Amino acid sequence: MKILLSNDDSVFAKGIAVMHGALQASHDVTVIAPDRNCSGASNALSLHQPLRIQQMDSGFYAVNGTPSDCVHLGLNCFLEEDPELVVSGINHGANLGDDVIYSGTVAAATEGRYMGLPAIAVSLCSHEGKHFETAARVVTDIITKLQSHPLAANQILNVNVPDIPYSELAGVKITRQGRRHRAEGMVKAKDPFGREIYWYGPAGAEQDAGPGTDFHAVANGFCSVTPLSVDMTARDSIEDMEKWLAM
Amino acid sequence: MKILLSNDDSVFAKGIAVMHGALQASHDVTVIAPDRNCSGASNALSLHQPLRIQQMDSGFYAVNGTPSDCVHLGLNCFLEEDPELVVSGINHGANLGDDVIYSGTVAAATEGRYMGLPAIAVSLCSHEGKHFETAARVVTDIITKLQSHPLAANQILNVNVPDIPYSELAGVKITRQGRRHRAEGMVKAKDPFGREIYWYGPAGAEQDAGPGTDFHAVANGFCSVTPLSVDMTARDSIEDMEKWLAM
Amino acid sequence: MKILLSNDDSVFAKGIAVMHGALQASHDVTVIAPDRNCSGASNALSLHQPLRIQQMDSGFYAVNGTPSDCVHLGLNCFLEEDPELVVSGINHGANLGDDVIYSGTVAAATEGRYMGLPAIAVSLCSHEGKHFETAARVVTDIITKLQSHPLAANQILNVNVPDIPYSELAGVKITRQGRRHRAEGMVKAKDPFGREIYWYGPAGAEQDAGPGTDFHAVANGFCSVTPLSVDMTARDSIEDMEKWLAM
Amino acid sequence: MKILLSNDDSVFAKGIAVMHGALQASHDVTVIAPDRNCSGASNALSLHQPLRIQQMDSGFYAVNGTPSDCVHLGLNCFLEEDPELVVSGINHGANLGDDVIYSGTVAAATEGRYMGLPAIAVSLCSHEGKHFETAARVVTDIITKLQSHPLAANQILNVNVPDIPYSELAGVKITRQGRRHRAEGMVKAKDPFGREIYWYGPAGAEQDAGPGTDFHAVANGFCSVTPLSVDMTARDSIEDMEKWLAM
Repeated sequence: MKILLSNDDSVFAKGIAVMHGALQASHDVTVIAPDRNCSGASNALSLHQPLRIQQMDSGFYAVNGTPSDCVHLGLNCFLEEDPELVVSGINHGANLGDDVIYSGTVAAATEGRYMGLPAIAVSLCSHEGKHFETAARVVTDIITKLQSHPLAANQILNVNVPDIPYSELAGVKITRQGRRHRAEGMVKAKDPFGREIYWYGPAGAEQDAGPGTDFHAVANGFCSVTPLSVDMTARDSIEDMEKWLAM
Repeated sequence: MKILLSNDDSVFAKGIAVMHGALQASHDVTVIAPDRNCSGASNALSLHQPLRIQQMDSGFYAVNGTPSDCVHLGLNCFLEEDPELVVSGINHGANLGDDVIYSGTVAAATEGRYMGLPAIAVSLCSHEGKHFETAARVVTDIITKLQSHPLAANQILNVNVPDIPYSELAGVKITRQGRRHRAEGMVKAKDPFGREIYWYGPAGAEQDAGPGTDFHAVANGFCSVTPLSVDMTARDSIEDMEKWLAM
Repeated sequence: MKILLSNDDSVFAKGIAVMHGALQASHDVTVIAPDRNCSGASNALSLHQPLRIQQMDSGFYAVNGTPSDCVHLGLNCFLEEDPELVVSGINHGANLGDDVIYSGTVAAATEGRYMGLPAIAVSLCSHEGKHFETAARVVTDIITKLQSHPLAANQILNVNVPDIPYSELAGVKITRQGRRHRAEGMVKAKDPFGREIYWYGPAGAEQDAGPGTDFHAVANGFCSVTPLSVDMTARDSIEDMEKWLAM
Repeated sequence: MKILLSNDDSVFAKGIAVMHGALQASHDVTVIAPDRNCSGASNALSLHQPLRIQQMDSGFYAVNGTPSDCVHLGLNCFLEEDPELVVSGINHGANLGDDVIYSGTVAAATEGRYMGLPAIAVSLCSHEGKHFETAARVVTDIITKLQSHPLAANQILNVNVPDIPYSELAGVKITRQGRRHRAEGMVKAKDPFGREIYWYGPAGAEQDAGPGTDFHAVANGFCSVTPLSVDMTARDSIEDMEKWLAM
C-alpha cells in the first residue's frame, strides 16, 4: 500500500523512524514531516509564508511548516502518485481527551481525511518512549483490519498505546474522548532581562477519565482507539436551537 | 456581562474594533488578541516559546501568539476576574464548512469553551468587509438570547454573516457544516533566488453546500449559526468498531 | 528635509514616537519600523520569507521584518521619493562598545548608508526611558550641523545620550567604541516541561571603558557620538599579512 | 587543536560537512550550527526567545537560532572545554564586499572573536558548490600558518575561495572589501491571496571591484583573504569631528 507518513515531533524524532521501519517492510512509504518540533500545532496552516521542502540524508522530507502543511503539500502538490493511507506518529506522548484538538499528530491525520484518504494518528503514552515498537505493531495490525473494514468518509482513528511491550497489552478498546481539567498550568515567569513571560506547563489531570474513555483504556493497559469525526457539527442541538435562535 | 474578546486577524484588525464598539455599550469587555495576523492558526498552542503580552494605545492587549494562546492566557493567568463569555471575531472572511477546523477565530471560541465558558465565533462573509456592524448586531442579538438558553457545556456557536446591511438579512438559520473541495489550490513557485516554494491559495469551491449547510444559508442572505461540538468523538461508529477492531 | 525614521524596538515604541514628534516640526518624516521588538537583530535580512508592510493608525508603517528590512524596503521599493537622511531610534537602552555589532538600531542606520544616505543611530542610555526628549534634541542639533559638514560616504553616526534633562548634559564627545566583557551572561534553565533551554542575559560589564570610549563619555554625563565605518576591512593589517599569508 | 565549527547554511549543509571532514583529521572538532538556513542572519542574537540545542545523528549539534547564537551558546555555556579556534563555513556562495555585514557566516566568526578566540569565515564562491574541498584545504593551510602568526585581538579572517580545483587556484591575495551596488533587487509581488509582498532578490553587481578588492581576487582565480576588524570605529574621522561636532 502507498502510505504517507508524517508526525508533529519532526522528521528527526525516534517515533517516526520506528513507524517507518515497521511500515516499510510491507508498504511503499514516503515520509514528509516538519523540520522542527510542532507539538501543539493543531491543524494550523502556514497561509502567510511559503513552504519549502528538503530531503534529508535519511530519505525523509522536511518541511518548514506544520503537520497539516506536510500532509497538504504532499497530497496536493509534491507526491507524483496519491497514497492510499495517511499515518501520523508515533507521537512522543499521549493524545488523550482534549489533547486531540491541539495535537499536530491528530491534525496530520485529519488533513489526510480532508484530502480524501483514510488516516490513523498514533501516540505512545509516555515521554520516555521505551516501546515505540508496540505502537508500530498496533498500527500495522489496524492497517490489516482496515482492508476489510474501511473507515467512514469523515472519520479518522486516534490510537493511543501504553508504553509497554506488545505482549503485555491488555487488548484494544474502542473509546470516546475523555476530558482534561485545564484550569491550571500556565506559568508566569521573568526572562533574564526582567520582562514578564508566560509559559504553558504540562497538561492538566484527567477530569473525565471514567470507563469508556481513552484515558481509562490506557490507564488499564489497553490500546485506545477513538474514532474521531472531522465534522464538528453538534447535530443533536440543531433542532432545539431552531426553536429559539432561528429567525 | 464580563466578556473576553479575541480574534485571529490581530489586535489591529477592523473587525475586532467594530465588535468591541458594539459590545462595550452594554458589557465590560477586555480584548486580548494576536499581535500578527493568525488566520489559519487553528487551535495551535505556543508550547515551545514563552508568551508576552503588551497593552496597545487602543487599550487592547496584544500577545505574540495564537488565538488559543490569547484566550488561554487571559482566562488562566492574566485576567483578575473571570469573564462570563468569550467572543471571537469579527473575522475578515467566512468560516464555513471545513474552514472551521483551520480557523483561528473558531479556535479562540473553542479555547473559551475548554476553559468553561460559553463562546461565540463570528465571521463576516467577504474580504471587502463593508458591513461589520451587521455581524456585530447579530452577535449582540445572540448574546441576549443566550441569557435564557444557555449553550451546552461542550458546544460553541459558529456564526457567519453575509456582508450586507442588517435590514437586508433574510433571517437566521441553524446549520450544519458543509464541505469545501480542497484538492486544488497549492501553488508551486520560485523565490527570486530560484528556489522552489509552495504557497497555499484561496480555499476551494463548495463541495457540499446544499440546503441545511452553512454555505447554503449565507448564499441565500441568511446569517448561519452552526453549533459546534468540541468533542470530536464519532460516537455512532463506536458500536460497529467494537465488533471488528476491539480485542 | 525628507527623513526615513526607523528603529529596532518596533513601531509601537515610545522612543520612535518621541523622535518622530521632534523631527516632524521641521522635516518631512516617514516612519517604517518592525512590527515586533527586534532588539539584537543586527543587520539581519529576511532573505527566506517575503515582507509585508501595513500602515497603522499612527500613520507609521509596520513591517514583519528586521530594522534592515524596513530601511531597505523603504528606500528600494516602497517610498516614491528618496529621503535625504535615515534616522534610527531613539533606542530604549544604550548601544555602546560591542553592542554596536548586534544592534538593530545601528543596523537600520547602516542600511541607510549602504543605500547611499547619511544616517544617524540614536540611543537613550537607560531602560527606564525618562528623557527621550533629550536624545531627540541632540539629534535635531546634529542634523543642523550635518548641513555644513556632510558625513563621509562610508560612515554613520552612533549617538548615545544619557537619560538626563538636556540642560544637564555635560556636552558632546566624539568617541571610539569601548568593549564589553561578554564571557558571562547566558542562563541555562528548564522550561515547564523539563526541557533544557538557554537564555541570553543582560550584556556584561565594561571591559574597555577608559577615556575616549563611548562608555566613558556617557558615564560622565556627555552625549557620545561615535563615527562608525561600514567597511570593516582592517587595513592596517593588510601589509603584514601579505608577507606571511599571500601566495 | 580544539575547534568550534559553525555556519549559517544549517547543520545539514554540505559545506559544513566537508569542512568537518577536513578538520577532523588533525583536530578535535565540535559542530554547533543552526537547524535552519540562516543566510542573511548577520550578527543577530535571539534575545527574546530561549535557545534549544539537540544532537543530530551526524553528531553535529543543531540550535534553533542564529549563527551568533550557536557560537555564543557553545563558548559561553555548552562546551566543557574552551576551543582554541572558531571556523565558520564553508558557506554556499560568496561573502564579498558588503555581503560581509549581512553574512551569518562572518557573524559566527565575529562572535568567536568577541568571545576571545581567533576565527576564520570561509565561503565557496558559487551556488553550485562543486569544489568545497578546495575551500576546506585553504582553511587547513591557513590554520597551519596561524600557529606562527597569531591574529590581532580584534580581527577575523574572511576567506573567499573560487569554485575550482585546488590545483587551479592562482594563489592567495590579501584584500580589502569591495562594494556591491544594492540599489536594485527588491521584488514586489502578490501572494496567491492577492496581498502585496516584497522579496529580496539576488545581491547586486559589483560597484567597487577593482584591484585590491575581494571581488577582484576571486574573479581572477585567487583565494581572497580579508582581515576584518570587529571594531567599527572610523578612527580617522574622530579628529575632524571633534572640531565641528564636539561641545
